Amino acid sequence: FPGCRILCLSRDIPSKPGCLNGSAPKDATSFDVRGTPGVDVYIVHNPQVAKVPTCVPRWPLDVRVEVVVTMKTPSDAVNDNKVRISYYGKDGGPPMHRAMLYLTCVGNLSVLPLQREWTWGPDGQGAILLVNCDRDDPKSSDMDNKDFCVRSYADLRDMSCMILRTRGPDAIFDDHKLVLHISMSDADKVGVFHARGDDILHQYKHVLGSNELSYIVDRPSGQEEDTFYVEGLAFPDADFLGLVSFHVTLLDVPDENLPETPIFTDTVVFHMAPWIMTPNTQRPLEIFVCSVSDNADFVEAVSKLARKARCKLTVCPELENQNDRWIQDEMEFGYVQAPHKTFPVVFDSPRDGEMQDFPFKSILGPDFGYVTRQPYNESVSSLDSFGNLEVSPPVTVKGKEYPLGRILIGSSFPRIGGRRMTKAVRNFLCAQKVQAPVELYADWLCVGHVDEFLSFVPAPGRQGFRLLLASPSACYKLFREKQEEGYGEARLFEGRILETVTTTTIDEILANETLRRENDYVQSCIDWNRDILKQELGLSEKDIIDLPQLFRVINKKASAFFPDMVNMIVLGKHLGIPKPFGPTVDGRCCLEESVRSLLEPLGLTCTFINDFFAYHTLEGEVHCGTNVRRKPFSFKWWNMIP
Amino acid sequence: FPGCRILCLSRDIPSKPGCLNGSAPKDATSFDVRGTPGVDVYIVHNPQVAKVPTCVPRWPLDVRVEVVVTMKTPSDAVNDNKVRISYYGKDGGPPMHRAMLYLTCVGNLSVLPLQREWTWGPDGQGAILLVNCDRDDPKSSDMDNKDFCVRSYADLRDMSCMILRTRGPDAIFDDHKLVLHISMSDADKVGVFHARGDDILHQYKHVLGSNELSYIVDRPSGQEEDTFYVEGLAFPDADFLGLVSFHVTLLDVPDENLPETPIFTDTVVFHMAPWIMTPNTQRPLEIFVCSVSDNADFVEAVSKLARKARCKLTVCPELENQNDRWIQDEMEFGYVQAPHKTFPVVFDSPRDGEMQDFPFKSILGPDFGYVTRQPYNESVSSLDSFGNLEVSPPVTVKGKEYPLGRILIGSSFPRIGGRRMTKAVRNFLCAQKVQAPVELYADWLCVGHVDEFLSFVPAPGRQGFRLLLASPSACYKLFREKQEEGYGEARLFEGRILETVTTTTIDEILANETLRRENDYVQSCIDWNRDILKQELGLSEKDIIDLPQLFRVINKKASAFFPDMVNMIVLGKHLGIPKPFGPTVDGRCCLEESVRSLLEPLGLTCTFINDFFAYHTLEGEVHCGTNVRRKPFSFKWWNMIP
Repeated sequence: FPGCRILCLSRDIPSKPGCLNGSAPKDATSFDVRGTPGVDVYIVHNPQVAKVPTCVPRWPLDVRVEVVVTMKTPSDAVNDNKVRISYYGKDGGPPMHRAMLYLTCVGNLSVLPLQREWTWGPDGQGAILLVNCDRDDPKSSDMDNKDFCVRSYADLRDMSCMILRTRGPDAIFDDHKLVLHISMSDADKVGVFHARGDDILHQYKHVLGSNELSYIVDRPSGQEEDTFYVEGLAFPDADFLGLVSFHVTLLDVPDENLPETPIFTDTVVFHMAPWIMTPNTQRPLEIFVCSVSDNADFVEAVSKLARKARCKLTVCPELENQNDRWIQDEMEFGYVQAPHKTFPVVFDSPRDGEMQDFPFKSILGPDFGYVTRQPYNESVSSLDSFGNLEVSPPVTVKGKEYPLGRILIGSSFPRIGGRRMTKAVRNFLCAQKVQAPVELYADWLCVGHVDEFLSFVPAPGRQGFRLLLASPSACYKLFREKQEEGYGEARLFEGRILETVTTTTIDEILANETLRRENDYVQSCIDWNRDILKQELGLSEKDIIDLPQLFRVINKKASAFFPDMVNMIVLGKHLGIPKPFGPTVDGRCCLEESVRSLLEPLGLTCTFINDFFAYHTLEGEVHCGTNVRRKPFSFKWWNMIP
Repeated sequence: FPGCRILCLSRDIPSKPGCLNGSAPKDATSFDVRGTPGVDVYIVHNPQVAKVPTCVPRWPLDVRVEVVVTMKTPSDAVNDNKVRISYYGKDGGPPMHRAMLYLTCVGNLSVLPLQREWTWGPDGQGAILLVNCDRDDPKSSDMDNKDFCVRSYADLRDMSCMILRTRGPDAIFDDHKLVLHISMSDADKVGVFHARGDDILHQYKHVLGSNELSYIVDRPSGQEEDTFYVEGLAFPDADFLGLVSFHVTLLDVPDENLPETPIFTDTVVFHMAPWIMTPNTQRPLEIFVCSVSDNADFVEAVSKLARKARCKLTVCPELENQNDRWIQDEMEFGYVQAPHKTFPVVFDSPRDGEMQDFPFKSILGPDFGYVTRQPYNESVSSLDSFGNLEVSPPVTVKGKEYPLGRILIGSSFPRIGGRRMTKAVRNFLCAQKVQAPVELYADWLCVGHVDEFLSFVPAPGRQGFRLLLASPSACYKLFREKQEEGYGEARLFEGRILETVTTTTIDEILANETLRRENDYVQSCIDWNRDILKQELGLSEKDIIDLPQLFRVINKKASAFFPDMVNMIVLGKHLGIPKPFGPTVDGRCCLEESVRSLLEPLGLTCTFINDFFAYHTLEGEVHCGTNVRRKPFSFKWWNMIP
């Protein structure tokens, strides 16, 4: 019975294996064995297992014969069960000698659930812990796991319950110490509270974690269960696989001159829930946008789109954003999940813009967690902004499933001197394990974010999405077609809104050899990424849509020439796309028409938003200026195999 | 053809996917496609694949139709192959338009072997790298991987060959740069040498590693292969999984004003060979023992045993050991293995005894590597001596195979203040992955080494070995039997050799209640380890033999009362066992007789070696005073799944 342990307290015969011969008289050749009703006796005999029937055949006294004694229920009193071994000589006859084994059964001491190992996948098992990184008490100045008390039931509900079962006669626990303990390396990963008193929170005591490595459990007479609550302090990272073990040990306290002896130890393993990102294909719940001095129209346009998508809109006021409009870059929304609780967690980027206090001050709150990473001894670059941190929808790559998608980050092409996301953030993302990151090449861009050349939209079909890529080739093709149709004089940037901007005709664009060379270069950079994306996300050409787009290359770094349409906000079927102000053909912008013709057949609706002066000329677009909190996956992360 | 890449240098039609529509006239509805003889053209059509026959049916101009163009061999000249696409209108008839795609095939640039991923197991694949940690040049002051040159062919043979294939027309390589590069994080893990000149070693140039992250490969006209040699600098560790990637990229150099563009990148992954320990069941090759002021008889006895086992004996002279006799504690022998080369590597313990320079000065040498680990900010304890580092023979645990066994180290019982092996060493051992370590409880011992209570001997049967455990229970049982047989007056430590030692009778030992309690305590500590060993090595009682042994507990730490027989040297079937000087029964030591009766039936021969004054009274025995280099496993580590 796996839930029970037997203590052999009697010293009549040695209590450990070898005991059969240990008490046998010299001439004995065989034995039989019987137990009191609470005891099951099995003979393991090379290698058949047979339960001993009431009227026993004798067994040879041979090292290959093992007697296994088990008990079904914990003892009521010390030594309340017995096993009698009778020894016989060669000639049979009555037993030459008898030995008694006195047994006391102690119920499994382990914490519930009873899981010593932690395994991934649908057949996996193991307990789960959340990093208690939200702030349930609005009056508190920091996250809930920064203190050593349970402040509220909301705080308690973010913790995992751990029950210590101590079934067995009281006398055993009078003689022995019961210790709950953790290893040094886990001490800064968890906090454990002992539920004491009549469920009165302020009596809950912090007993393990930080400097507390062991806790002697005082077991009141007859109390068979003791309740603890566990909170996580740290997310998986380069130096932390995410597994935390709790041990419970029954210690013998034999003698003043001798140390305490561990009788046995049981262990339970918890896995810290990883931080999980949500791709564009997840339903949007809340949209964030900054209100700054010059973007009222943009905020209004986003607000309208939010209403269409039936989505909550949260405007970060100028007081909090300090005129920093790049809310995509400041933070990334994700979530943590355990079977008993799920809550969103904002990952605050190491980018230090004027908005830097916003995530901690305004996002962190009741059931809204917070995490950040400080760079090691590295300088922070534009690639550390979270416009450079995206995640694909679920994919399958050569048979390997990524049911939560894969994280995409932009890096330098691996040569000296390029910009790359800080190791602190890359390590953190890798350590979460469930959305194995892919590094793309983004350093060719002036700003250097993956959202400048790719996006994902929901779409019917095999994969459930399309990858959108910015494409100079597609733009040249479109403009050539328009030229052939006789619209070579149509002008980019024409119209009242952009009065101050220099316009240029399709003919001029197609004749501009410098622009052509620059865009060939850009196309080759995007093509290089296209190869990696197809390979690492298991995509085929059918899964990719090329959106017409031109770039300029200045000081060897690229920026969008007209508003970068791929840098869009995706709210279910509603897309908010930077208005490109393309050449007008038949009264319509031919770039918008082209994008519509590519996306609307997929059931998507395109809303083109003017971000020209408020974002585009500042090197960003709609996606950079917004942020979206999305619904967690219905797929549970512990059911995957990373 | 996976080994080839096609460069579309022609700008006649867009060179990347989408090209079919890219050059299609507006009214075209279908197409056909033909290539020159070097080109294979496939149509991927939703999703059947059919090679286009010479007389083609036309294909609809539909995004779901993909044309895949491959080439079998690299081009002889730039644009020497062509694909012609003919476009047709609705009404059939002659083609409305034709587009030409000019192709140049460049053979795969990747290093050989062609493996982008590294996988474990018998079906796994991937290249292997050795840490070049030996010193092939005896005149050199340090390991071979500490310099930036190839000193000798012996040095070269420790490296892995990497061949860069650059097949294709010369003109391509005139226009493009070929770069071999590594990431920053791999830079301190490898060194790469470029084989140049006519195989003249001093012309070999260090091109990657340390500060060199990229190397522009100058490809002489017509040279299709370039040879590099790679050496490892670092073993896997807490911050290094053991995988190193090399990338080769073909860069386009388009224009002064534009950056170089990566056209494509190929990658090869190497796995650093782990450091592997050898258990007692591996054939001994060389025995080490120290010659100190008072151990001539012991050295002679070990030497005799070595001759019996047909084993080389190396005596570390007093000049080198500075009277430090604990050669087991100073170092552990292991090995590294790649398909092309295997050599032994000594792991120098962080223990700082008088012998500390011996491994580096006298063991490190030609084809004998060296590795050590400095503790992080931790103090070194007796548990860091490598008498506390053992390895089991191969085992299978609940279906999981450990074909190279599992490392065993002794630790404190996990509570505050106990001694534990330094994290630096534990991290190193875990990071090797192939012999997943098990932590046992050894801190209850005064010295605190696992070799004080366990050993492994080769033996017939399922597992191929037996685990030997020191057993106070077995000793009490033996002494009680002898008492019953009338030998209660027989004395421990009697005899001329131990004249100065106080003797004690079996009767006195059995009557000594303090000794009894101490040994009950010791037995419970060993039993706790027995449980862990059975669980973590998948052992049953049949696999374990209890050797009679008594301990004393002084200041709450245990030491062997008489020479600790389990602390033996195992040389194949020949065991060198500490002579216990037990009570004489029928003219023979009853302890020796008991051990013989347990081990000789397994085909082992027992030689009892007197280590009483030279080792035992200094808290060590035969095993502590010797060290053995053993034959590597025939099983290759990369065939396991860790």
